[in-house]
Amino acid sequence: MTAEPLRIAFLLFPDVTQLDLTGPVQVLSRLGNARLDLVAATLEPVPTDAGFSIVPTATFADVPAADILCVPGGFGTHRAIADDATIDWVARVGADARWVTSVCTGSLVLGAAGLLRGYKAGCHWAQRHMLPLFGAEPVAERVVIDRNRLTGGGVTAGIDFALRLTALIRGEAHARMVQLALEYDPIPPFDAGSPERAGVAVVEAYERRVAQLAPGRDDQLRALAARRGFAG
Amino acid sequence: MTAEPLRIAFLLFPDVTQLDLTGPVQVLSRLGNARLDLVAATLEPVPTDAGFSIVPTATFADVPAADILCVPGGFGTHRAIADDATIDWVARVGADARWVTSVCTGSLVLGAAGLLRGYKAGCHWAQRHMLPLFGAEPVAERVVIDRNRLTGGGVTAGIDFALRLTALIRGEAHARMVQLALEYDPIPPFDAGSPERAGVAVVEAYERRVAQLAPGRDDQLRALAARRGFAG
Repeated sequence: MTAEPLRIAFLLFPDVTQLDLTGPVQVLSRLGNARLDLVAATLEPVPTDAGFSIVPTATFADVPAADILCVPGGFGTHRAIADDATIDWVARVGADARWVTSVCTGSLVLGAAGLLRGYKAGCHWAQRHMLPLFGAEPVAERVVIDRNRLTGGGVTAGIDFALRLTALIRGEAHARMVQLALEYDPIPPFDAGSPERAGVAVVEAYERRVAQLAPGRDDQLRALAARRGFAG
Repeated sequence: MTAEPLRIAFLLFPDVTQLDLTGPVQVLSRLGNARLDLVAATLEPVPTDAGFSIVPTATFADVPAADILCVPGGFGTHRAIADDATIDWVARVGADARWVTSVCTGSLVLGAAGLLRGYKAGCHWAQRHMLPLFGAEPVAERVVIDRNRLTGGGVTAGIDFALRLTALIRGEAHARMVQLALEYDPIPPFDAGSPERAGVAVVEAYERRVAQLAPGRDDQLRALAARRGFAG
């Protein structure tokens, strides 16, 4: 029995949080009978947030359609939203994809492409409040499913998201096998993965760091959204 | 207060399980005041197991020493072990590194470089039984710490490993902030991350798949070990 063929397209952009992408890519590379592309404007290596570059496998022109569209996030999200070619490609592929998906602040890119109007969506906890800019309803869950939109929380949520999607597409038995192959039996060393449980001091330390790395990012995103015709 | 500077070197080799590498790289890229390199024989992009290539940041010649050495695993492990230049570099950097570490079957590479004789070590569950070939004692834990050797279990264990290492080096408060930044609050969709709990049918499905992808891999590794002078 051969599994139904699938085309998977991940957006790859400069300063992406690479684990937003590499986590779900690892899981979805085990779907079987699927072609998975990392798509960018050109085939030049794309610098990630973690000090190394990933080589795209296809250009926007090469991939006019896909069964699964997935957009990762990171500090490069604003630059991706500001780029017309990127947003046009996301909007075009997302319009007909069977599954329109994101990890982390990738949901803001989907939003900017007009793909989340009237949908519930997830996002990195620290940027979730920006989703209404694009007509989406923020939900504080690890993986948010609303019709054919699957949107994950921050960074590591991409692994949970991709296993959920695997089960929806190939069934639970296949997803369990992939989970075992990746030995996904997490034992986080601390109970610090959400702002509610990390404690005030840790949240404040994180926010000081973001204020240094990306000062004024909420206002910048509001300006970008306004430019793209979102009333805010 | 400036954190002590650190040099981190990850081995990058063809057909690496890329999440073995990209998970801990994401975590350790947040150590602060650290230079992180992905090291290979040349600077040519290296194909991973997931259908895309990663660009090395340095060659073996560029990185004669590091504070932290980390070796990922994957189906490319055997080829890495068979390659003299790779094993020589791992042995040389590992001899003086403050932390000698691995994720998944990367511990077999450390073993082949003679770095685990008399040490307890972790590995992907399906290959853990091969560690004694190299004089190491296999331990079925997510992260195994024996003196300055930190060795993780399969693939996704790299995230837990790297957070543990972050806490050892920069303290628990810093590790908690990184965990929050990466929203590492996992909710695996199934209880299938270990062979004990995945169930017999899932384990058998996995083993059938490996038998197809890498037939005879235990015997091949025994032959490679013998060639490197390990009695087995």
